Formats: sequence, C-alpha cells, structure tokens
Amino acid sequence: MSEPFWKTAISKVEPNKILVRGYNLMDLVGKYNYAGLTYLLWRGELPSTNQSRMMDALLAACLEHSLNAPSVDAARFVASCGVPLQSAVSAGVAAIGDWHGGAIEQAAKILQEGITNLKGTNQSIEQTAINILKEHSERRERVPGYGHPTHTSDPRTKKLLEIADQTNIRGRHVELAVSIETLTEKFFHKHLILNVDGCIAAIISDMGFDWRMGKGFFIVSRTPGLIAHAYEQMYSEKPYKAAEWNEITYTGPPEKRVAD
Amino acid sequence: MSEPFWKTAISKVEPNKILVRGYNLMDLVGKYNYAGLTYLLWRGELPSTNQSRMMDALLAACLEHSLNAPSVDAARFVASCGVPLQSAVSAGVAAIGDWHGGAIEQAAKILQEGITNLKGTNQSIEQTAINILKEHSERRERVPGYGHPTHTSDPRTKKLLEIADQTNIRGRHVELAVSIETLTEKFFHKHLILNVDGCIAAIISDMGFDWRMGKGFFIVSRTPGLIAHAYEQMYSEKPYKAAEWNEITYTGPPEKRVAD
Amino acid sequence: MSEPFWKTAISKVEPNKILVRGYNLMDLVGKYNYAGLTYLLWRGELPSTNQSRMMDALLAACLEHSLNAPSVDAARFVASCGVPLQSAVSAGVAAIGDWHGGAIEQAAKILQEGITNLKGTNQSIEQTAINILKEHSERRERVPGYGHPTHTSDPRTKKLLEIADQTNIRGRHVELAVSIETLTEKFFHKHLILNVDGCIAAIISDMGFDWRMGKGFFIVSRTPGLIAHAYEQMYSEKPYKAAEWNEITYTGPPEKRVAD
Amino acid sequence: MSEPFWKTAISKVEPNKILVRGYNLMDLVGKYNYAGLTYLLWRGELPSTNQSRMMDALLAACLEHSLNAPSVDAARFVASCGVPLQSAVSAGVAAIGDWHGGAIEQAAKILQEGITNLKGTNQSIEQTAINILKEHSERRERVPGYGHPTHTSDPRTKKLLEIADQTNIRGRHVELAVSIETLTEKFFHKHLILNVDGCIAAIISDMGFDWRMGKGFFIVSRTPGLIAHAYEQMYSEKPYKAAEWNEITYTGPPEKRVAD
Repeated sequence: MSEPFWKTAISKVEPNKILVRGYNLMDLVGKYNYAGLTYLLWRGELPSTNQSRMMDALLAACLEHSLNAPSVDAARFVASCGVPLQSAVSAGVAAIGDWHGGAIEQAAKILQEGITNLKGTNQSIEQTAINILKEHSERRERVPGYGHPTHTSDPRTKKLLEIADQTNIRGRHVELAVSIETLTEKFFHKHLILNVDGCIAAIISDMGFDWRMGKGFFIVSRTPGLIAHAYEQMYSEKPYKAAEWNEITYTGPPEKRVAD
Repeated sequence: MSEPFWKTAISKVEPNKILVRGYNLMDLVGKYNYAGLTYLLWRGELPSTNQSRMMDALLAACLEHSLNAPSVDAARFVASCGVPLQSAVSAGVAAIGDWHGGAIEQAAKILQEGITNLKGTNQSIEQTAINILKEHSERRERVPGYGHPTHTSDPRTKKLLEIADQTNIRGRHVELAVSIETLTEKFFHKHLILNVDGCIAAIISDMGFDWRMGKGFFIVSRTPGLIAHAYEQMYSEKPYKAAEWNEITYTGPPEKRVAD
Repeated sequence: MSEPFWKTAISKVEPNKILVRGYNLMDLVGKYNYAGLTYLLWRGELPSTNQSRMMDALLAACLEHSLNAPSVDAARFVASCGVPLQSAVSAGVAAIGDWHGGAIEQAAKILQEGITNLKGTNQSIEQTAINILKEHSERRERVPGYGHPTHTSDPRTKKLLEIADQTNIRGRHVELAVSIETLTEKFFHKHLILNVDGCIAAIISDMGFDWRMGKGFFIVSRTPGLIAHAYEQMYSEKPYKAAEWNEITYTGPPEKRVAD
Repeated sequence: MSEPFWKTAISKVEPNKILVRGYNLMDLVGKYNYAGLTYLLWRGELPSTNQSRMMDALLAACLEHSLNAPSVDAARFVASCGVPLQSAVSAGVAAIGDWHGGAIEQAAKILQEGITNLKGTNQSIEQTAINILKEHSERRERVPGYGHPTHTSDPRTKKLLEIADQTNIRGRHVELAVSIETLTEKFFHKHLILNVDGCIAAIISDMGFDWRMGKGFFIVSRTPGLIAHAYEQMYSEKPYKAAEWNEITYTGPPEKRVAD
C-alpha cells in the first residue's frame, strides 16, 4: 500500500479541535507558556516546570543583537523594497546558516558524541575535552560554539548557565562544554569563550534534544527581533536602502572595448 | 548632514552588553518571559504581568494547525529537497500573507478605525459594528477575521477571550469584534464566527498595538510549528515530495505541432 | 464536482515528454531561445523572431547593477552565513518589491489604462500624458517608472528603445511613456528620466503583456546577477558579513535600570 | 588596511554606465543573448557563438516541469496566500536544493575529479567510469545525475547532447558521463539513465565551469516557470490552497488528558 501524501505525527486538526502530540492545545494554553508548548511540539511530551523555564530562557536570551547580525541586515534591505513584513522576516530566517546560529547544531553534535563515547569507559570529561580540542586544532578548524567577534565574555552564556543551575538542567554536556572553554588557550593560543551558540548547544544536549534541532532554537529566538527590524525599516526609514555606487570598491578588470 | 547608513532605536550591542530598548537584556531574562520580552522589543516598554501573560497566550494559541495551512505545506515541499532547516522555515514564513494570518492586520485596522471614530460621538459600539458590516456587504467583501474553512467555532478564540478577561485586557476593541460576530448573520446570511485572526486583532488593539504589527504575532506563533514540520519532513519522510505527473490535471491546449 | 487539487494549463509532463502550452519543449529548444520560450510560457503562444529578440533584450538589459541594489545587498549578507547558493538567491528575489523592479507593473498598469481609455475618443496621447502627470502631481505622488537615484539618463532605456524600433514593437504605449518623460519638468519642476522600469513597462505593454506580469521580467533579468554575487560572496569573501557594532548608530533611549 | 565593506569584481555602476566584467553592458545587449551575457557574468569573459548557443539551450531545456517538482508545488502554496509574485518565486528558488537540481553540482564535481585524475595516466575514460560506479555502489549511494522518477529516457538529455555535438562543446566530461550511463546496469542491477542534471553537469564541465556554479543553471532555468505558476495560482485559482484536514493522515499518539 502506498504512503499517504499528507501525513504527520505532530498534530491533528478537526473541526473545533487542535491536538498537538495528542494533547488538546486549548487545554494547555494558559497552563504552559509558549516556550513550554514549543518543547511539546518538538519533543512530543509535556515539559516539567523547570524544562519550561529553561526553554523560555533559551528562546529569550538571543532575542536581539541589533544590526550586528547578517540576518537582520538582510531583512532590512528586503524590508526597504516595498514588500510585506513577512518577506523581510523570511529573508532574515534564510540567513540562519552554518555560520550564523548554525554552530548550535554543530556544537551539540560534538558534545553529544563526546558524552556518548564516554559511556562504559573510564575516560574523564576533561580528557574528552582535550580530544575534541586536539582533533580540531590538528585539522586547523575552529571548535564550533567558541569565540565571538564582538563579546570577550558572552553575557548570554553567563545568564543561561545560571538558569541551567537553578533548574537542575545543567549536566554532563554543559560540564564538557565548560571544560573545553577552560582548555582552549592551550590548543589555540588564545582563550576562546563559550559563546551563546555553544552554551545553547550544551544545555539542549543536557535536555535530551537531537542536535539536528539546534537551529530551531536560534530561529525562534531571533524571529521577534527580525520583525522589530522589518517594522522599523518599513515605517521609520526611507525606502530603497542600498549601497551607493560611489561607495562600492570595484575590483574587476578595467574597461574593455567590444570588438565590432 | 547625511543619515547614518546603519541606524536603529531597537537595541544597542557593545562588547559584553546587549541593550534592548534601553534595558540590559540579561537583567530581564528569567524575570520576563520570551513573550513579555517580545512585547518590550515591539513596544519599547516593559510589560505588566498581565500583559506578559496575554502576550504568551497570543503567541501560544496558534502554534500549530497541521498540514491544513499553506505555510506548512510549502515548508514541507521545500524541506524535502535537501536543504537546511532554515530554508524550509523561511519559505513557510513567506506564505504568511494577506490570506494566511494577514487578516490580523486588516481586522485590527478596521477595529482601530472603528473605535477611533467613536470618540467624541454618541454612537454605540453596536452601531459601529453595523456600519462596518454594511460597508463590507455592500462592497461584497468579507469582513477580515470572521469565518473559518475548518472550524465552526474557533477554539482559539474562546481561550484567548477567556485570558483577555482574566488579565483585564478585554476592552472596547474586543467588544466591537464580538458585536460584529453577533450581527454577521443579518448581513451575510450565515453566522460567521470570530476566528483566531479576528480575535488576536481585537486583543492586540486593546493592548495598544499598531495594526501594522498584526502579522508579527502570527509569524512568531507559527515558527515553532514550521520548524517541527521541517524537521519531521527532513528526518522521517522520503526526499523529493512532489505531485505525481499522473495526478496533475492538465487544462491547457492539446498537443500542437511546431512548424518546420 | 470538486476541483482537482493539482491543476495547470501551463505544461504537461508524462514519461519522456514535456509539453509547454501544447508544444513539445524539445521540438523548440535550439529553434527558439530561452527568452522566446519564456514568452511561450507566459503568453501561451510562440513568439515571432522579433518578439524573441525583444524578449531577449528585455531580460538582458538589467542583468546586473552591482551592489547598488537592495536585492544584491540582501543576497550577499545571506550568502555570507554558510548557506547553499539558492538561499542567497531566494532572499534576493524576495527583495524585488514595489520599490525595486516593482515600478514595471505599476507603470504598465498606468500606460495600459491610459491607452485603453483613449479608444473611441479624439484625445491625443499627449493629452493622456498630461492627465497622468496632473493626477500624480496633485496627489503628490511620483509617477512610477520615472527618475533614477544614480543615472541621469538610463543607458538601458536608450538601448531597449533602439531594439523596440528595430523589431517594430514600439507602439502607442512607448509613445505615451516618452510623452510623459518630455512633460515631467512641467509638473515636477525637474526633468524625470524614463528609467529602465518605465521603459520595460511600455515595451511589454506594446507586446500585449498583462501588467501584472511586470515583476516577472525583472526577476528573470536579475537572477543571473544574484547568482554571480552569491557565488562571489561564498567563495571569495570572508564568512559572516555584518555591520560592526561600533558603526551602528543607536537612536533609542539611554540605558535604564530594571526595578528589582 | 581593512577591507572595503562593499566590494565586487563583477560589475561597476556609475552614472549612466554599467560595466559587467569590464564591458559596457549596453554595447553587448543585442549582440549577445541573455544566455551569453549570463556566461560573461559568471565566467568573466565573452562567450563564442557556440558557447552562447550552448548556454541558451542549457537554460531553455529545463524551463518547466509542471507541478511534478517540489519547487513549483511550494511556490503555488505560497502564491495562494495573498502575497506578491516575487514571494512565491522566492520560496520556489529556496527549494532548489541538493535533491532538486542539486545533482548538477554533485555530478559535475565527480566528473571533474574523474577527468582531472586521468591526466598524466594511461587510464581510460571507461576505467574511470567503472571506478566511480564501484565506489558509489560499495557505499550504497546513488550516482548523482542518473535515474529519474518520471522519465525512462530523459528528453532533455538527448536534446542537449545533440546541441553539444553541433557546437563542438562535447568533450571528455560528456564522454565520461555517457560511459557511466552505459555501465550502470552492471553495478546497480538496472539501467539508470543520464538525466538532465547529469547531462548539464557534463556539458558545463566541458565548458570549463566550476562545479560549484551548477545550481545556478537550474535556478535560472526554472525561474520563468516558477513565475508562470505563481501568476496562474494568483489570478486563476482560489486563494488559500491547503491540504484539507480530513485528507491528512495523523500518525501521532491518540488523544491524551492533561492532568489538572
């Protein structure tokens, strides 16, 4: 028998009823917050109070980073072109790539593999951290989730680790992530801070999330900011934002003649 | 003097500090929830506890509507093509148009104009409702925010009105929206329910939001669901979802010969 | 009977055969160029040699405008984020809005209405031009398709009008468009050139295109340039292009304290 | 000295002049076709007549494939939502991923590595084909560019190879691609046809294109079709295309009660 064309395990809509992962969504709204219901949507089970609180902080901590983010810059150019709000937000979301929020999934993968490989061995978390750093430095690759172009101590990391402590969510993945940070200087000749991507990666790993869901956190987190920027561009700025012709450095060949 | 190229009133990033609308974001995370901080981002001021609670419910109530939504359908086709998660979400956001969530801004505009025009007159809210219905039925246009293809009573409307009552946010815009619903049958020969778009429109109007921010609520609300569907499509379904050639009805001209 | 869910008059695919508007596409490739086949796709009939030539020039003339275009700027920010090529192009296409290429459809609508209203009257084209200019200047609106932020004489307009002459496609819509240009100074106190958007609008109107297809020309025309820029950004530039925090002018409120 | 923020080697805009790769674009329009100028944009040099002709055929051959393509399906859902034309096209372009047109770059990479590795050896093209097939079958991976879900003989491949012969562009990469096709049955127990992706990959490799430009061909090729479908959906179909709730198979858990 062939597969149904439209199929999902996420939710079921029928007249006057919306089930999410088996629960009537309207029984949950008001009891669980948006972040907690996002947990249900993504994990298939209801969160504890601590899990809801942690989810909320994860989504709130990187709400906004001004124009100092390619997604926001892209969204503002699009928003200046006479398009509806969602078009600018859509372009901003398209920018949440491997180098902009994407370190969450890369770091979560490394941390999860590190902790998985520890099982049944006598190896310490510190030794695992050393192995990860060694591999990356030998391949001359950055460890995803470490270092930041603007911050020398990422304020979001500090706050999220605090809440991970308060909610008893902090576990071995966070321990590994922090251990890597401590040792970065040995391998990369300068201290590389655990940035917000790496911190989210560690916490969602301790919460049991699949690393491939990593970008989802960053997308939800940044969407309200993208909306705020699109709105500001559309209603407080002049239309048609673009680089001026005389501020663009041309690096191509000098003018050539076309043969007749 | 020329305007600076990069300029915003939303936030300020400097090393180790992120100000949102003047507040240090890290002083707020944990005290305010994601929905409350979205309020700050969009409005420029901190929400009260009731406003935070209402924001959270507004964002939670339409988190998910299964494949019975063009944005989700679009996202799943894109997700089936060997692309990163954010590409599918981006395509889904692009679908949040005038006929898919867009009724929030259209309805909010009508409700806000209706209430504004009442000021300094003796006209009742009911009379305003009648005027709005009359104008639309004479132009043979639907009133945005009323009627639903699937639900005969929108479960989200009921829940959101409950919370608007509990938080003392319910005001004249909600009153007008409900009054219109009551009278729809007179003008359109069938009862048209106040749907979730119309309900959100009324509540955010009572909260003082600019109607042009309407789509923002729907976009944030649906993003976690778009992510869940993109993830399910990518990791639980076969690649390359497409209509089969023999299930497509061709309505064009019969085969023609090309002259030599 | 209900409508089929998947339905189109554009083309028909069956094993080993692709019909476009009734023609076997493979009978046409090599005989007709890409631009001519685009005409077939959009119009439903095969173009004449002159129509193919004109189509090709319309698509070629605005292939590229460097970073002096919001679509290209947006595409480059997205391309810098570690995403596949198509994501950057997709974001660039999303920027082809009412103020970036969109003047083609707005201008074509005005020109087509102008010429349609002339039918059966004794009114001259010049008088129609005057009416259009008068209406816009009274509403203090720009006439779409006139003026350019960079060019004082749009080189693309000159070239396209030349080819419209050579192909005998130049007709009353072009006449009206040129007449408007001649008279702009009278109504707007400075000469506003017929820009490439206005020129394409006039020519496609003389070719019989629906004005609502206007943006299609600009989208196809700019796509190769968007691809070139995405490629250059991805493979010749550093990752993560973003405005630096200290080059962003913050115009929001000064730092505030959060009450405990 | 720091790098300029806006920088490109592709083109230079100044008032009344647009240089592309050093040539005044307006000297070229009319002499070179759109496809030939796309070659200039992407390669940095003017094409020969044969190269222009080949480019044109490459872009024309996969103009359209009806709703039997995820990009078109996605575009139509988006187009049904009350959005501008470019939003639907943008979503369609976002779907040109690794499994939808993306085989061009994967196949071109394999073919180019195969031919590069041949240099200075006595190995035959057939032996290279065997090596490629062997590697893939041992890893239980498909060879990109071979096989098609709808066509048993891809009509576009036949036509493009014909034109590659006529233009003397057919070379060792095409030879290798055809050799692989001939041998597929030995390694995969059924004949896998050289599909249009594989064929384009081979031809652009013989033309000297970087394999990473592969998706560019498919994007340009499909854009006019995406526009035609968006237009048809917007102006000939009902708004809000979505899967009906009762046609969606729910595979999640049965309804659960929420504990009070």
